[in-house]
Amino acid sequence: MRDAYHEELDSIGEGLVEMARLVGSAIGRATTAMLDADLKLAESVIAADQKVDDLQHDLEARAIALLARQQPVATDLRIVVTSLRMSADLERSGDLAQHVAKLTRLRYPQTAVPHDLHATILEMGQLAQRLMAKAAEVIITKDVDLALQLETDDDEMDLLHRTLFTHLMDDRWKHGIETAVDVTLLGRYYERFADHAVSVAKRVVFLVTGEHADEVQGAQTQAAEGK
Amino acid sequence: MRDAYHEELDSIGEGLVEMARLVGSAIGRATTAMLDADLKLAESVIAADQKVDDLQHDLEARAIALLARQQPVATDLRIVVTSLRMSADLERSGDLAQHVAKLTRLRYPQTAVPHDLHATILEMGQLAQRLMAKAAEVIITKDVDLALQLETDDDEMDLLHRTLFTHLMDDRWKHGIETAVDVTLLGRYYERFADHAVSVAKRVVFLVTGEHADEVQGAQTQAAEGK
Repeated sequence: MRDAYHEELDSIGEGLVEMARLVGSAIGRATTAMLDADLKLAESVIAADQKVDDLQHDLEARAIALLARQQPVATDLRIVVTSLRMSADLERSGDLAQHVAKLTRLRYPQTAVPHDLHATILEMGQLAQRLMAKAAEVIITKDVDLALQLETDDDEMDLLHRTLFTHLMDDRWKHGIETAVDVTLLGRYYERFADHAVSVAKRVVFLVTGEHADEVQGAQTQAAEGK
Repeated sequence: MRDAYHEELDSIGEGLVEMARLVGSAIGRATTAMLDADLKLAESVIAADQKVDDLQHDLEARAIALLARQQPVATDLRIVVTSLRMSADLERSGDLAQHVAKLTRLRYPQTAVPHDLHATILEMGQLAQRLMAKAAEVIITKDVDLALQLETDDDEMDLLHRTLFTHLMDDRWKHGIETAVDVTLLGRYYERFADHAVSVAKRVVFLVTGEHADEVQGAQTQAAEGK
């Protein structure tokens, strides 16, 4: 049987998974609301972010109480400190999903995204949601290989981001400045959301291996190349 | 005389002030480089961010070692945990200054900012630098009133950001899409930089009062209004 202390540590982990689940759902819904110009769905995403913020506050308070009461050392200390950072990443991801929803509200009943960019924005939204789902899975399974995989997925986001810019910079762009500004900001929101998901996964790598993800990746590449 | 433990706590505070000083200087230099299309200055800002990252890693390692070795409780624990958060804010601010410098490099020998927006971008850059200087002062003095003042200063940043958007959305905008995209991103960088400076100051308020800055501000407003 686990003692109260380790139960509390576990429950912090569960809080992180719940946050990741909520913000992953938020970015998916925000993207749907954006593409369909669905004001009601956008409003629900905006309102739901409060839940994420509340979870973060609660999780932080519990982590700090644990530090004070139990004074963990070594691995447990690392878990608590890393949890604080992951909760900050997840809270910020929630803000970014909310930004997408707010842009939808601002442009309603128009849609901020022109039709020829729907497919790209849809892909960015889906990829963002997938990255966050994987980040949650990494928190649960502590699977280092899966964690490192998120960086490769993130390259895909960079590619989509560049596609977006290619459209924007094309001389045939005919959607005007306001839409260019909207699309620029949207691209940035998805890119940052993905960065935070990758960051969460990397922190798990650090927890498990005690090394930063880049070092682990480097060592694996060297091993694979027989160096 | 102070013991080794409190000297270590102090030195973490000094590390934060040094980080704030470096990123404040970086946003000022990045703005100058941007407006003058000065590639050399931009390159120096990009290179200097490594120093900020190193300081953060060092500071985090020392904070975590302090948690493990000294197991601080109450106020000291709050200081260490809050320091970790402040260092994350400052590291991110450094990234944003670096983004401004990278945009300068990308557009060189052109400048990313059209002449009729120089004044607004200059003001945003100066305000960002001032906010960070005040944040550093707040870390040193723990002056709650000064900390709360940063939020008012940040309203000024929001105003400048809106001015930028008014220019962008003006039918007479004649600088094309690429510049519109650049200016949109720049505006976002300065706004986020300012947010992080405000966040650092707010965390000091939390350290000193044990309450979140919004609550303190609310209480002061109520007191002033005789409620």
